[in-house]
Amino acid sequence: MPDTLEKQYSPEQLQAINNALSSGMYVHVRKMLHHMPACDVALLLESTPSKSRMVLWQLIDPEFHGDVLEELSEDVRNGIIRRMMPEKLADAVEDMDTDDLAELLHSLPDAVVQEVLKSMDEQDRIRAESALAYGEETAGFVMNTDTITLRPEVTVDVILRYLRLKGDVPEDTDTFYVVNRFDKLIGSVPVTRLLTATSDMTVEELMNENAEAIPVDMPETEVAKLFERYNWLSAPVVDAENHLLGRITIDDVVDIIREDAEHSMMSMAGLDDEEDTFAPVMKSTRRRSIWLGVNLITALMAAAVSDLFEETLSALAVLAILNTIVPSMGGVAGNQTLTLVIRGMALGHVNDSNGRALLLKELAIGFLNGLLWAVLIASVVALWKQDFTLGLIIAFAMMINMIAAGLSGAFLPLMMKRMKIDPALAGSVILTTITDVVGIFAFLGTATLFLMP
Amino acid sequence: MPDTLEKQYSPEQLQAINNALSSGMYVHVRKMLHHMPACDVALLLESTPSKSRMVLWQLIDPEFHGDVLEELSEDVRNGIIRRMMPEKLADAVEDMDTDDLAELLHSLPDAVVQEVLKSMDEQDRIRAESALAYGEETAGFVMNTDTITLRPEVTVDVILRYLRLKGDVPEDTDTFYVVNRFDKLIGSVPVTRLLTATSDMTVEELMNENAEAIPVDMPETEVAKLFERYNWLSAPVVDAENHLLGRITIDDVVDIIREDAEHSMMSMAGLDDEEDTFAPVMKSTRRRSIWLGVNLITALMAAAVSDLFEETLSALAVLAILNTIVPSMGGVAGNQTLTLVIRGMALGHVNDSNGRALLLKELAIGFLNGLLWAVLIASVVALWKQDFTLGLIIAFAMMINMIAAGLSGAFLPLMMKRMKIDPALAGSVILTTITDVVGIFAFLGTATLFLMP
Repeated sequence: MPDTLEKQYSPEQLQAINNALSSGMYVHVRKMLHHMPACDVALLLESTPSKSRMVLWQLIDPEFHGDVLEELSEDVRNGIIRRMMPEKLADAVEDMDTDDLAELLHSLPDAVVQEVLKSMDEQDRIRAESALAYGEETAGFVMNTDTITLRPEVTVDVILRYLRLKGDVPEDTDTFYVVNRFDKLIGSVPVTRLLTATSDMTVEELMNENAEAIPVDMPETEVAKLFERYNWLSAPVVDAENHLLGRITIDDVVDIIREDAEHSMMSMAGLDDEEDTFAPVMKSTRRRSIWLGVNLITALMAAAVSDLFEETLSALAVLAILNTIVPSMGGVAGNQTLTLVIRGMALGHVNDSNGRALLLKELAIGFLNGLLWAVLIASVVALWKQDFTLGLIIAFAMMINMIAAGLSGAFLPLMMKRMKIDPALAGSVILTTITDVVGIFAFLGTATLFLMP
Repeated sequence: MPDTLEKQYSPEQLQAINNALSSGMYVHVRKMLHHMPACDVALLLESTPSKSRMVLWQLIDPEFHGDVLEELSEDVRNGIIRRMMPEKLADAVEDMDTDDLAELLHSLPDAVVQEVLKSMDEQDRIRAESALAYGEETAGFVMNTDTITLRPEVTVDVILRYLRLKGDVPEDTDTFYVVNRFDKLIGSVPVTRLLTATSDMTVEELMNENAEAIPVDMPETEVAKLFERYNWLSAPVVDAENHLLGRITIDDVVDIIREDAEHSMMSMAGLDDEEDTFAPVMKSTRRRSIWLGVNLITALMAAAVSDLFEETLSALAVLAILNTIVPSMGGVAGNQTLTLVIRGMALGHVNDSNGRALLLKELAIGFLNGLLWAVLIASVVALWKQDFTLGLIIAFAMMINMIAAGLSGAFLPLMMKRMKIDPALAGSVILTTITDVVGIFAFLGTATLFLMP
């Protein structure tokens, strides 16, 4: 690898620090931390079992605390903040960008927020309070207020002279926004346009008039989708009267995209998407218990259905042996459909007009796969247990359940979306209940009909 | 919403087009399509059931075919390309960026690629062949070659004059790269630095010397992780001797991030991550069959374990009724751990040194949750079936299985990572097998020991 990549901390180097930490070589660790970029220190903290985290935290130079806090995932950050004195926290956050500040303050208990605000100086407090004004997970929450604005009548010459005097521009500025004298957004000028324009051109001549602006109350996941779809690097944020309030840059959106994409996966397993990989044991146990509790109810419902057919099961033990197959296959097939539809909804593929087409498609697939596996399982069971009727019974139950699975897997998320419920979390539980109940009922029910005298 | 957002096609508008399409109002649809940005046309195609897709495709102005192809997901794009004449395809792709061109060509059968290359003019063919040279899903595959380079001795004045003459810069240029006379990368200059510098400064004085460069053969998911971690907007790509080959911009990476994040979720359900939400029925059925087949083997193995205890099941039907509970709970708990660890690995939290800590943590959680739910299920069962011993038996089996689930859920992905196997796909199947087999064996085995004479 070229020399230039040595500065990036590889897994081996992070491991080395971890080892030094557990060996108690604190001076050595402190030195190594001092040279690491904030994002790598954050990654190290997230990869450290929670017991050792506070030890590591104390070894980090306090002047970097703010930068590191910005980079941490919510769960891990909250664990650390909770143990900081409000004054120290105020010091750490004073240089934070407004968007990171907003996120951090929103996750603190009100009492602590008040304390932190009290410890801040006037200017920072005003910034912090404006950051807190916007609802969490909206555009206003995510935006930066450090926007350079241009007036339409100004020439390129004047702008360049101003910028040279100023000496620097805010990080990740790729576009300047043009406002009229009422501070309303009227256009945008890509930074590169300033380089290729002649010095006598005015901003008005250079600007794009149709600057697509984001309403300040737009949910952040929708903002992320727009960035993804239109390949933006940044976008202006406006209020209802089109006054420019700030800008959102792609780096904030990238985090939202990953969380959004992971959200479905984590929710389907009953986990929070900001879940800390190394959360303390008691905390993890408590959280997961709730999910397990809900699934236990599902399992008991399935057992209750089996209970209806106690006589049949008593008479024919072979049914007890085969009883898990049909619900299991239904669950797998249903889960495929559910996952596909949830992702399709996240990507914006699914809407009201094609919902019906989707249901029909999944019904057709459920039918075909049901047929295929019905025939196969019938053969296996008939051969294994030397009973042709049994084979037919399990084949029939399989078909029923596969069709039910396909339909439910498509229908449930569509219905939940209309009811404004998160489809990933509730959807997987309800789907499992359906495929278990339908599967067992179809199998044992048919068996009772045809095999019991 | 401000006027400015009207141009963005809302779900309702896409729906309106879909309706017009199914009503056969083709002239109307053609007109609407003409005014839509390429990314929205792509979204529309992805949301259209596959039967109507080719109809829609014909209604799109051929001069936009290339732009739309760039925006489509792989699956959908392949479906369309397969039906295009090579010459038309060559026309469509001639203006494509090298990175999109590479992706498109890589997904075509060799014979078609040859035909398309033949139909291209000299310059485009050279670009296309260089694009094909790099391995799929590496930095070289994703990069753009349209990089403006600067020489260190040049002054800002000269650069600005050159840019004004040139009239434009490549899209999304936020950094210029500095090369020596051997074309080796020696530094970078953010575009904004050029605006704030005085005209007599040289590039050498302005540049960052430690430009972190990406090796051309780096896997794209690692590239995406670097972008995420260091908040880059773009990065230079170099060969082994540090020659500048091109640049990667954040917009390419954003797609990779979403796919990467979705990959685990899709794989755990046995789906391909580029799966087309509206793929033709036969194609979907075929793909999903394989996954269902694998899971059927798992289900049969669980049935085989039950089979060992046929005598016990015959004698005590109540066991048949309760038999699904323990494996089910184990599966849910194991899936939580598996999901968490897989995501932890994707985020870079997990490495060799903390793997052991992770295992111990999940073991502890498995034990505690096992204990809790063992006690609860024991109470429920003892009350329901009026049998205290039965309650103890299922409690014991529950504990065993929860511990096994927690351990497997953590151990499997760690082990697979070492064996360079994708943990999401194989991990979920093996986990289910373990929790089913252990759960049933523990339950029926203990029951046989204590309840059978």
